[in-house]
Amino acid sequence: MEQEVRLCEVGPRDGLQMARGMMAADDKLRWIRQLAAAGLREIEVGSFVSPRLVPQMADTGQLLPQVLGIDGLTVCALACNLKGAIAAYEAGAHVIAIPVSVSDTHSHANVGKGTDAQVEAVATIADWLRSQARPARLDVAVATAFGCSMEGAVPVRRVAQVAAAVMRAGADEIALADTVGYAHPAGVREAVRAAQDAVGARLVKLHLHDTMGLGLANALAGLDEGIRAFDACLGGLGGCPFAPGASGNIVTEDLVFMLESMGYRTGVDLPRLLAARALLAASLPRETLRSGVAAAGIPRTYPAAMAA
Amino acid sequence: MEQEVRLCEVGPRDGLQMARGMMAADDKLRWIRQLAAAGLREIEVGSFVSPRLVPQMADTGQLLPQVLGIDGLTVCALACNLKGAIAAYEAGAHVIAIPVSVSDTHSHANVGKGTDAQVEAVATIADWLRSQARPARLDVAVATAFGCSMEGAVPVRRVAQVAAAVMRAGADEIALADTVGYAHPAGVREAVRAAQDAVGARLVKLHLHDTMGLGLANALAGLDEGIRAFDACLGGLGGCPFAPGASGNIVTEDLVFMLESMGYRTGVDLPRLLAARALLAASLPRETLRSGVAAAGIPRTYPAAMAA
Repeated sequence: MEQEVRLCEVGPRDGLQMARGMMAADDKLRWIRQLAAAGLREIEVGSFVSPRLVPQMADTGQLLPQVLGIDGLTVCALACNLKGAIAAYEAGAHVIAIPVSVSDTHSHANVGKGTDAQVEAVATIADWLRSQARPARLDVAVATAFGCSMEGAVPVRRVAQVAAAVMRAGADEIALADTVGYAHPAGVREAVRAAQDAVGARLVKLHLHDTMGLGLANALAGLDEGIRAFDACLGGLGGCPFAPGASGNIVTEDLVFMLESMGYRTGVDLPRLLAARALLAASLPRETLRSGVAAAGIPRTYPAAMAA
Repeated sequence: MEQEVRLCEVGPRDGLQMARGMMAADDKLRWIRQLAAAGLREIEVGSFVSPRLVPQMADTGQLLPQVLGIDGLTVCALACNLKGAIAAYEAGAHVIAIPVSVSDTHSHANVGKGTDAQVEAVATIADWLRSQARPARLDVAVATAFGCSMEGAVPVRRVAQVAAAVMRAGADEIALADTVGYAHPAGVREAVRAAQDAVGARLVKLHLHDTMGLGLANALAGLDEGIRAFDACLGGLGGCPFAPGASGNIVTEDLVFMLESMGYRTGVDLPRLLAARALLAASLPRETLRSGVAAAGIPRTYPAAMAA
């Protein structure tokens, strides 16, 4: 069994996009440097979306070139359409992530078009990227894959269909996203298996929220099915502005603690990761950062577990 | 696979014993009635320990006879020695739970004697109970089974040895307890398997804390190993006064949400369970109740999941 787990820190994007208060551009840059220095090798630094709708992301275009120089860092940016994807690419993003929601209602609210039309947008973006000189990875997050606060239950066969469609459209990597935090471990297992049947190893990652307190249990269910990549957010901030009821992402600190304790390797230095909370907390004083490990302290058994 | 999961609500004992503030005896009684009315069939209502050391439990002797009349409720009480067990039995407890810590250091701090001496105490209590006319169940919680904040790592073979010793001493049911919240899913699986090898089906339950945010992931790991009983606490209160760093139990509301969503049956009515938070919150205004489900609301997919 593969023991390396790839973490994508989505704090600068998912974590900040609904935050009460704005993080200054200089703070974002310093924070991303701290996250990278703690060993996070993939960071979603922002999104190329309407600054009117998501003002916190308005500086992504300025920020992105500055973080490209961080040694060994894979820089990801989210976009919802071709225009945004081109902007992300031209700013130098290594990975461009596009959401495609299984829920047609959420898709309209999130990207202004239905699921099938958004799959078409992925195909257009993939074609455009293939015509460019510099390669960039095209990720698709299959959103509301475990339920939708507007449509309710989401059929697993539909998740598999959408995953297959985005693979045909040209996605390099596919994630299943629990956009509103409705997932439970049995549902995660079922959806992951169905998506693996449909797209094989192209299904790479889970994007989980901790809305119901089940985030790490859902991550464990994914691990059991062979998933070896997860999005997470320092302090468990996050949520979708266009999905009522969505709350924070799974907590990077606690996920690292769980994975490293279990013998997986994340490459993350937990004390340094915890230190990166201070800048976030100071920059967003109205937000409450979560994390059991941060509250309780790293237990004395942790290094022993790492050495085991 | 067995789909019934037995929950023991430990709020009136573990939840209150470290609470900031005292819950009035009348409120305790009303709260226990509400918990039972929500479908919790087993409740740890208090402990027979020194009122000087744990003042919140001083009224357990008065409370216990009053809750015996609640229809269908299994009434549990914790005791640390023969004197407490006799008091619990004579008050009418259906189940007497005794902690036996794998960590000798924690055992001394918690019950005033080492692990082996406490196993002897279990034998004495079991002998005494067998001499009584009314049957009562003798549960043993194998404490610090996943690590100790004072001793550090706890060897799995020692967990199995202690479980075997308490079985020989006469325990009817054995639980593994993550007293300080150091457990991770791989450790849970390993310890559960080792204990099952040692005591078979006598290993019944897990008692988990959510210190590092891993509580429900650890519960899932236990479920995967065949565990079908869990302690939990409404609002995730709880902790051990004699184990530095211990924090809240796993949240009953979120555990019920997870289990029922996965197709397990707990017998608990989630909306009624959530309603039982109000009295707890009003009675302990200085405590912060946790629960993702309480904060986010029961999602519209929940009944669908139940019917599935």
